[in-house]
Amino acid sequence: MADLDALQAELSGLKLETHPSLVKQKSRDFFWYSPVLKRRLDDVTGDLVVTPSSEDDVARVLAACYRHDVPVTVRGAGTGNYGQAMPLAGGVILNMAEMTAIRSIEPGVVVCEPGAIMADIDRRARTETGQELRLHPSTHRTASIGGFVAGGSGGVGSVRWGGLRDLGNIVRLKVLTMEAEPRVIELAGEDIHKVNHAYGTNGVITEVTMPLTAAYEWVDVVVGFDALSSAAAFADMVANQDGILTKEIAVVAAPAAHDYFLRHQRFIGREQHVVVLMVAPFAMDALAGLVDRSKGTLTYRSDVTVAGDGESVPPAYELCWNHTTLRALRVDPAITYLQILFPYPDHLTKVAAMADKFGDEVVTHLEFVRFDGNVACFGLPLVRFTSEERLDEIVSVFETAGCPVFNPHRYTLEEGGMKQTDPVQLAFKKETDPKGLLNPGKMIAWEDPSFDYSSHKTYLFPGLHRA
Amino acid sequence: MADLDALQAELSGLKLETHPSLVKQKSRDFFWYSPVLKRRLDDVTGDLVVTPSSEDDVARVLAACYRHDVPVTVRGAGTGNYGQAMPLAGGVILNMAEMTAIRSIEPGVVVCEPGAIMADIDRRARTETGQELRLHPSTHRTASIGGFVAGGSGGVGSVRWGGLRDLGNIVRLKVLTMEAEPRVIELAGEDIHKVNHAYGTNGVITEVTMPLTAAYEWVDVVVGFDALSSAAAFADMVANQDGILTKEIAVVAAPAAHDYFLRHQRFIGREQHVVVLMVAPFAMDALAGLVDRSKGTLTYRSDVTVAGDGESVPPAYELCWNHTTLRALRVDPAITYLQILFPYPDHLTKVAAMADKFGDEVVTHLEFVRFDGNVACFGLPLVRFTSEERLDEIVSVFETAGCPVFNPHRYTLEEGGMKQTDPVQLAFKKETDPKGLLNPGKMIAWEDPSFDYSSHKTYLFPGLHRA
Ligand SMILES: Cc1cc2nc3c(=O)[nH]c(=O)nc-3n(C[C@H](O)[C@H](O)[C@H](O)COP(=O)(O)OP(=O)(O)OC[C@H]3O[C@@H](n4cnc5c(N)ncnc54)[C@H](O)[C@@H]3O)c2cc1C
Ligand SMILES: Cc1cc2nc3c(=O)[nH]c(=O)nc-3n(C[C@H](O)[C@H](O)[C@H](O)COP(=O)(O)OP(=O)(O)OC[C@H]3O[C@@H](n4cnc5c(N)ncnc54)[C@H](O)[C@@H]3O)c2cc1C
Repeated sequence: MADLDALQAELSGLKLETHPSLVKQKSRDFFWYSPVLKRRLDDVTGDLVVTPSSEDDVARVLAACYRHDVPVTVRGAGTGNYGQAMPLAGGVILNMAEMTAIRSIEPGVVVCEPGAIMADIDRRARTETGQELRLHPSTHRTASIGGFVAGGSGGVGSVRWGGLRDLGNIVRLKVLTMEAEPRVIELAGEDIHKVNHAYGTNGVITEVTMPLTAAYEWVDVVVGFDALSSAAAFADMVANQDGILTKEIAVVAAPAAHDYFLRHQRFIGREQHVVVLMVAPFAMDALAGLVDRSKGTLTYRSDVTVAGDGESVPPAYELCWNHTTLRALRVDPAITYLQILFPYPDHLTKVAAMADKFGDEVVTHLEFVRFDGNVACFGLPLVRFTSEERLDEIVSVFETAGCPVFNPHRYTLEEGGMKQTDPVQLAFKKETDPKGLLNPGKMIAWEDPSFDYSSHKTYLFPGLHRA
Repeated sequence: MADLDALQAELSGLKLETHPSLVKQKSRDFFWYSPVLKRRLDDVTGDLVVTPSSEDDVARVLAACYRHDVPVTVRGAGTGNYGQAMPLAGGVILNMAEMTAIRSIEPGVVVCEPGAIMADIDRRARTETGQELRLHPSTHRTASIGGFVAGGSGGVGSVRWGGLRDLGNIVRLKVLTMEAEPRVIELAGEDIHKVNHAYGTNGVITEVTMPLTAAYEWVDVVVGFDALSSAAAFADMVANQDGILTKEIAVVAAPAAHDYFLRHQRFIGREQHVVVLMVAPFAMDALAGLVDRSKGTLTYRSDVTVAGDGESVPPAYELCWNHTTLRALRVDPAITYLQILFPYPDHLTKVAAMADKFGDEVVTHLEFVRFDGNVACFGLPLVRFTSEERLDEIVSVFETAGCPVFNPHRYTLEEGGMKQTDPVQLAFKKETDPKGLLNPGKMIAWEDPSFDYSSHKTYLFPGLHRA
C-alpha cells in the first residue's frame, strides 16, 4: 500500500481534501447514466483530492505521487458519462477546478488553463471579440475545456466542424508527464491525437489552445414533421446546405420530444417528430423556405416565439446530445442510451431500418455531424433498459447492420471506442507514465495487452478499488 | 429606331457619356478571354453610358428607357468574362460604378449598394468588425458586388461555403423592375435565385445584403508534388478536413505553375505540380503535418517565406480561378480555357482520365469546392486553342465522360450553364421586364423559346448590334 500520510505531508501547502464523503463526491461523474456502469462503479472512490492552482502545483503532485506510487486521476468538472474521471484504483483525484485562467483571446484562438468552463470561455470570447468555441458538449455551462479535450468527442458545432478527433479542432496542448521529474510536452498538429480522448491516462493537460469562430445570436429552432423519415431527410438536407450556417441539427422521434422536453412541450405535438436546430440569424429566411418546401412546421423559433406566460425555455443545445438522454431519464428512469455511428452515404436508410426493427424499445435520436468531410449522423437513441444481455444484443444488431457502436456502458477507452488499441496513445503512455499511475484501468492496451476483444466479454479492471 | 436624343433630354441632370470611344470602352468586359467571343463580340457597343448615383436615378433611367424602348445593360466593373455586360443590342449602359455606399456592417451581414468593390467591402468589414465576405471572385480588387451576384458564380471561399447558387450565400436583394413605373422588389431565401446569375436580364439590383464571416490573416501556401495525382489527392484530402479552415484550394499541373506564375517562379520547380491554398494561421501546424504525410513540399508560405530581394508576390487568390487563365494568357496568348464540373464522388478518377486523354493540349487546373454538401472540383483547364471546332470537340469529350461543361465561349445564360431554360428566371423576367429591354440577347428562353439545344448549334442573337 502506498503511504498516503507521507504523500500528504509532502503536499503540504497545497489544497487537500480527505473527508471521505467529500472525496467520494469528487470521485464520481455521470457514470450513473448507464445502469451497467452504475452497478459496477458505484462504490469507487479516491483517497485524497488535491486542487492545484498552477502548473507548478501539478508538477509537484505528479512528482510526489510518482515517488509514492500513488495513482492520479485528473478531474475537470466530472460530467463525463462513462466513469472516465473515476479513480478505479483509488489514490489522488487531481481536481483542475481552480486552474481556470483564460490567458489570451486572439482572432481564431483562445489559450487557457484546462479547468476553464466552456461557457465562461465563450462569454469572454464573445464579449471581447465576437468569437466563440467551435465545438462544445451539451454540458457547455458546467464542463471544463480540459475535460472536453481529454474525455469528450464533439457535440454542438460538429455539424459544421466535425469532432475533436479532426485535425485543427484543437490547436495546441501543454501536457505534464508522470515521472520523477515531470516534463512539459507541447503537442500540435497530428500529435494532439496522443492525448485527445485519452481520459488523462498519458499526461495531465495544463494548457489548452482552441480555435475560435465567429459568434452569432444563434436562433433556436424546432421544426415538426409527421414522419420520422421526413424529419431525418430535412435534417440531412439542411446539414448539406453549404451556405446555411447552422451550429446544431438533431432529430428526436415522437413522442419523446413532446414527452421529455417539458418546457418546450407546448410547442410540440405528441405525434410530432422534431428537428432541433441552431441557425445563424441571417440564414433564417433561407431555412424557412426549406421548411416550407419540406412540408415541415416551424413550431418554435427563439427570435420570434414569445413564451406567453413569460416562462423561459432551455437553450436548444440542452435538448441535444446527452441532454436528450438526461431529459428522458428525468421523466422515465428506466431509460438508457447508446452511441451509434450511421455512416455516410446510406445513413438515412440505416436509420429507417433500425427504427423499424426496434420500434418503441429504441427511440430514434440523431445528431447530424460532418464526419471525414461528409454529412453523417450519430444515433444517441433512448433505449428502454431491461437487462445487460438485451442491451448487448441491441448493440450487436446495430453492429451487424454496419453501424459502429461506441458503447457508453464501458469504462475503458477501447470498449467505448472501436474495440482496438490506439497505438499512438499507448506509445505516448509508455513515454509519459512509465509506472502506469495515470487513471489506471481505463486503457486495456496498457493493463492487459493480450485482452481478446472477440470474446465479447467486458473487460473488468482487476485493480478495481472499492471503498 | 429609338429616339436617343429624346431619351437624353429626359435624363438631363444625370451623368451621361456619349463619346463613342468612351462608350465603347464601357461596353466591353473580359469577353476577349475567349477567342470565340472575341471574334463575335468585338464590335459590340452601346449608345450612351448613364452613371446613376442613387436608386431614384436608376428608376428614372429605367422609366425613360421603357418609354423610349431603349435597351438597358447594367455594368458593374466589367470584369465578366462571357460578355455578360456587353450591350448586344446597343442602347444604354447603366454604369453602377458610383453607387458604392456601404450602408451597414453587422455581425454576419453587410448591406451595400451594388457598385461597391469587393475589396473595399472587405477592407471596411475587416477594420471595423474583423469580418469579410464569404465568397469572392479572384477579381476581388476590381469587381463589384452587384456584378458578382448578377454575373458570377463563386470562387475564393467556395471550398468552404459552396457557390452563390447555394441558399444562404446571398441574404437579401433589392431589385428595380423595367416598367413604366419601376417597382422595388425585395428578394430573400429561395427567391434570390431569380436574379442571381441572371446577367441583369430581369431587374436591376440596387441593394445587396451579403453574409459575412470571420476574417483571418490567411496564409498563402504553395505545396509541390511530383505527380499530378498526388497533388489532386492532397487537395481533396485537405478540403475534406472539417477542422482545417481553408479559404482556397487549387491545383495547377506542371509546368504551368512554374511557367505562368512569374513572381512565384523561384518557389516552384518546372516539374512540380502545385496545390495553392489559403489557410487560417492557426491551422498551419495541422496542414504542415498533412504535407509531410502526403510527401509534398511546402515551397512557399506567406507567413514564413521571405522574398530575398524584397520583391512582393501577388496574393494566392490571384493565382486561382480565372486569374490562372489570365497569367497563362499573358505568357502565351494562344491559350484559352474551359469550365468543367468534376462531380463527386469520382471526381479524382475523372480528373486523371481527362489529363491522360488530352496531355499537353489541356493542362489541368482544378478548383476544389463544396458542391451540394460534398467536396468536388471544378476544372478550369488551360487549353491550347487551335480552332472553334476542336474546342467544341474537347467540350464533348468532357461531357461524354460525365463532366458537365459550363461553356465560357458562349454569351447566353443557357449555353454558359446547363443548356436548359431556367424557368424561375424566365418567369421573373416576364414580371420585371415585359418589353424585354434588359440586356437583350442573353436569355435564349426569352428570345427564342423554341431554340433546339440538341442541334449543337451556337445560339446567335439576331439583334446583335454592330457599331
Ligand atoms: C448531460 C450530458 C451531456 C453531455 N454531452 C456531451 C457532448 O455533447 N459531447 C461530448 O463530447 N461529451 C458530452 N458529455 C460528456 C462530458 O460532459 C464531456 O465530455 C465534457 O466535456 C467533460 O468535461 P468535464 O470537465 O466534466 O470532464 P471530466 O468528466 O472531469 O473528465 C473527463 C475525462 O478527462 C480527463 N481529464 C479532465 N481534465 C483533464 C486534464 N486537465 N488533463 C488530462 N485529463 C483530464 C478525466 O480524467 C476524464 O477521463 C455529456 C455528459 C453529460 C452528463
Ligand atoms: C481574371 C478574372 C477572374 C475571374 N474570377 C472569377 C471567379 O473566381 N469567380 C467568378 O464567379 N467570376 C470570376 N470572374 C468573372 C467576374 O469577374 C466576376 O463574375 C465578377 O464578379 C463580375 O463583377 P463585375 O462588377 O465586373 O460585373 P460585370 O462584369 O460588370 O457584370 C457582370 C454581369 O452582372 C450584370 N450586373 C452588374 N451589376 C448589376 C446590377 N446592379 N444589377 C443587375 N445586373 C448587374 C451585368 O449586366 C453582367 O451581366 C473572373 C473574371 C476575370 C476577368
